[in-house]
Amino acid sequence: MPDIIGHNYIGGARSAAGTVTLQSHEASCGEALPYRFHQATPEEVDAAARAAQQAYPALRSLAPARRAEFLEAIAAQLDALGDDFIQLVTRETALPNARILGERGRTSGQMRLFAQVLRRGDYLGARIDRAQADRQPLPRADLRQYRLGVGPVAVFGASNFPLAFSTAGGDTAAALAAGCPVVFKAHSGHMASAEVVADAIIRAAEQTGMPKGVFNMIYGAGVGEALVKHPAIQAVGFTGSLKGGRALCDMAAARPQPIPVFAEMSSINPVLVLPQALAKRGEQIARELATSVVLGCGQFCTNPGLVIGLRSPAFSAFSEQLAGQLAEQAAQTMLNAGTLASYTKGVQALLAHPRIIHLAGRAQQGNQAHPQLFKAHADLLIDGDPLLQEEVFGPATVLVEVADVGELHQALNGLHGQLTATLIGEATDLQVHAELLPLLEQKVGRVLFNGYPTGVEVCDAMVHGGPYPATSDARGTSVGSLAIDRFLRPVCYQNCPDALLPEALQNANPLGIARLVDGQSSRAAL
Amino acid sequence: MPDIIGHNYIGGARSAAGTVTLQSHEASCGEALPYRFHQATPEEVDAAARAAQQAYPALRSLAPARRAEFLEAIAAQLDALGDDFIQLVTRETALPNARILGERGRTSGQMRLFAQVLRRGDYLGARIDRAQADRQPLPRADLRQYRLGVGPVAVFGASNFPLAFSTAGGDTAAALAAGCPVVFKAHSGHMASAEVVADAIIRAAEQTGMPKGVFNMIYGAGVGEALVKHPAIQAVGFTGSLKGGRALCDMAAARPQPIPVFAEMSSINPVLVLPQALAKRGEQIARELATSVVLGCGQFCTNPGLVIGLRSPAFSAFSEQLAGQLAEQAAQTMLNAGTLASYTKGVQALLAHPRIIHLAGRAQQGNQAHPQLFKAHADLLIDGDPLLQEEVFGPATVLVEVADVGELHQALNGLHGQLTATLIGEATDLQVHAELLPLLEQKVGRVLFNGYPTGVEVCDAMVHGGPYPATSDARGTSVGSLAIDRFLRPVCYQNCPDALLPEALQNANPLGIARLVDGQSSRAAL
Repeated sequence: MPDIIGHNYIGGARSAAGTVTLQSHEASCGEALPYRFHQATPEEVDAAARAAQQAYPALRSLAPARRAEFLEAIAAQLDALGDDFIQLVTRETALPNARILGERGRTSGQMRLFAQVLRRGDYLGARIDRAQADRQPLPRADLRQYRLGVGPVAVFGASNFPLAFSTAGGDTAAALAAGCPVVFKAHSGHMASAEVVADAIIRAAEQTGMPKGVFNMIYGAGVGEALVKHPAIQAVGFTGSLKGGRALCDMAAARPQPIPVFAEMSSINPVLVLPQALAKRGEQIARELATSVVLGCGQFCTNPGLVIGLRSPAFSAFSEQLAGQLAEQAAQTMLNAGTLASYTKGVQALLAHPRIIHLAGRAQQGNQAHPQLFKAHADLLIDGDPLLQEEVFGPATVLVEVADVGELHQALNGLHGQLTATLIGEATDLQVHAELLPLLEQKVGRVLFNGYPTGVEVCDAMVHGGPYPATSDARGTSVGSLAIDRFLRPVCYQNCPDALLPEALQNANPLGIARLVDGQSSRAAL
Repeated sequence: MPDIIGHNYIGGARSAAGTVTLQSHEASCGEALPYRFHQATPEEVDAAARAAQQAYPALRSLAPARRAEFLEAIAAQLDALGDDFIQLVTRETALPNARILGERGRTSGQMRLFAQVLRRGDYLGARIDRAQADRQPLPRADLRQYRLGVGPVAVFGASNFPLAFSTAGGDTAAALAAGCPVVFKAHSGHMASAEVVADAIIRAAEQTGMPKGVFNMIYGAGVGEALVKHPAIQAVGFTGSLKGGRALCDMAAARPQPIPVFAEMSSINPVLVLPQALAKRGEQIARELATSVVLGCGQFCTNPGLVIGLRSPAFSAFSEQLAGQLAEQAAQTMLNAGTLASYTKGVQALLAHPRIIHLAGRAQQGNQAHPQLFKAHADLLIDGDPLLQEEVFGPATVLVEVADVGELHQALNGLHGQLTATLIGEATDLQVHAELLPLLEQKVGRVLFNGYPTGVEVCDAMVHGGPYPATSDARGTSVGSLAIDRFLRPVCYQNCPDALLPEALQNANPLGIARLVDGQSSRAAL
């Protein structure tokens, strides 16, 4: 068993000043695990934010390659965790062993991707406009710009990704890469896992000589508000519910100094199945879609919660096939009792709606989630019925049949912002419905063709973001290397002596990075 | 005289549905100019936002080079405006002829800079991660990302730059370049100038075949609130007071769908004069600084409002020289009566403060602003006295003498966020005080060495931004080509057929732009 003491992580030390303790639970049976986690006191929240603030000048001044070594050391520490760790995570989340092994690889892979970004140096956004002493009517000064970390970042982990969107997850990786110390609020659903990962980060920080306070972690309910309101915190990363994310956004906007919140919140991820594709491979699509709906018990931000098709015999057949597929899927244990309660409530609301019919799925009972298929009248989407806009977190999806292309456009226009939209179509479908892509681009962060939205690649080109309420700021992504941009701000140096400039902007270009020099990209020394 | 009818600009047509009219005034005497401007009705505000929304799909889909032609056509139209236009602007603002000619050149130059950015294509942020069909354990899909305009943008012009930060100013240029139609709220101080510029934009839009509604302009008091709250508006650009900017931020954050506001608000732009520089060229610095303080009657966002030095005979001598210089400077007419009233109030507050002494300047009276020099106790800065943090908009500045380096650090740590900070020092000064730069970097968007903050170059490397309350979001700049980033968001395409991709992401790379392909920058076709 890992050695878990449940103390907060503050400035490189452990602290348990408070008397309130919390427990995490075995997801499959609800039994408490034998650990006590000390809720951070207001003073501890303050100390954690201050520790991050104190670490900030040193962290942001480190050469990018040094921070890359830190991220790689975290990756190595994560990869070296033993089977007991994997078992612990599966106990806290009921996610299967193979999934946790995969997610661990994804998490260390994210750290290594950001290390690459740091070495590539394009995130620095180096721009140099050289002096023009003889310019008329006025000379031009020497102006140089690069981007540095905004300051300490508060990160709120997700329930559904105990590793990849949690303690050492994407937001933490992006913030550390940007040179921003992190205060991580451990998710109540997997505090023991969080502790083992935090230990791994601290070991990596010590190994690579990072400033104390580079990574801090606090436990507890209600500590998030104090954290977001703390003057040292300069940005927030969050993955979770619309209600929770919006509350953080409102708090951050009402601060004396407002700060940006990057909250990834709610998405129903519409999938459009087009006629030729249905005619050619409807049964296959039904099978694949059912797999995507129940993957990880439907506990993905990108779970397909809405399937839209044009009225036709082929769509009717497809609906039946999908119902058949989903009826056969086994019930699964959810992340925790709260998640199951919320799923049950969501399913009940769909069952109770007079214009939504239940197509497949066993009565929701017991301590596992049964996959469910519903069919809603297109008018509900067109008229903006809130029930169709809200994510039901779990293995449920809703079919919507539209009468014609006009109704399809109306239905899509009625959708709120989404993380993803998917077009399933043959080449002829996509030609005939070419107007759909510009419409979907306005609604989402990622458009998929002939795939399924679950499974978010961690790479340079990924966008895991999208218009509200999918996220609080469509200009960000929380997966992929562009995620670092959220935590950077530009600074300009005017007529700065070369020796005082950050390396990224020095004449000799010691980092060897591409820079925009007088409007041209160049790696040359000046 | 230009033909000025005072109707709102909505979707390429003119509209004057309301009965409330406003007038603008001759700045030097306060007399009303012979034009009536029709305040937009709520229906007209709605119509303007909808016109922008309708123009958006067409505008964002245009090839970047087409939008570049539009911006260049605006530049040509601005450059072609006659002397009567220049005279009109000087009448409305009391800014001198030469300044307005220079500002016009800056404004058309900004348009041309963004045209270059569009042709360069780096703003698109094109990233391609190609499919890896054989990857284990799972294949990788083809993923491609670029950035598109966020949607219609509301722009609020500045009082102090009737051209460069107004109708066709930097925010408008950046938004149009990003593919975002604009609804511009004309500043009440120069509505006639705004109308002539709006006509120039509309002529350029018609010449280059832009969609109707690409640029809209509304007049009136109180119309801004309805505009910021309009669901079609997706971002806001603002230059003005802290109070006004914060109010817009709060409104935008409280919308059902919150939107980003880029407000450039309040900055006192500290200047640090270091000992060796004072010893060597104190008198010259006093002369140059006085010129910067009174330039444009001190009506610049980057006006140096705070001058800090270490206690020494040299600093005392410098203070006297600066007092002598400022005492000699003539009074000047301000932009309008409100600006003068606000300046007078600010000067009175400084005069009334028991720990601030008046060093130079004639008693503030009449209809012009007299330059003023004050000296404040360092404790006021250290203890965060609000009077020293607030911008007094006009030709006034405050000296602060600190006892030693420790007090200097305390004083700088007490400062709020700023647009700029300036270090005046010899090489030895900068070596001895090397710790100042990392400290100032945290407070500002631009650090200057041996220069003066007035005069903001429009170029790739400029940052006209900074931590709150200098701006509402330190991650943006409102001057320079990086300003376009505020109005862009990334979208990802997964396994999209080549023909359906935006040109920026097609295999053949028809735009010939640099793209990040599998982690390497490349202009090659794939």
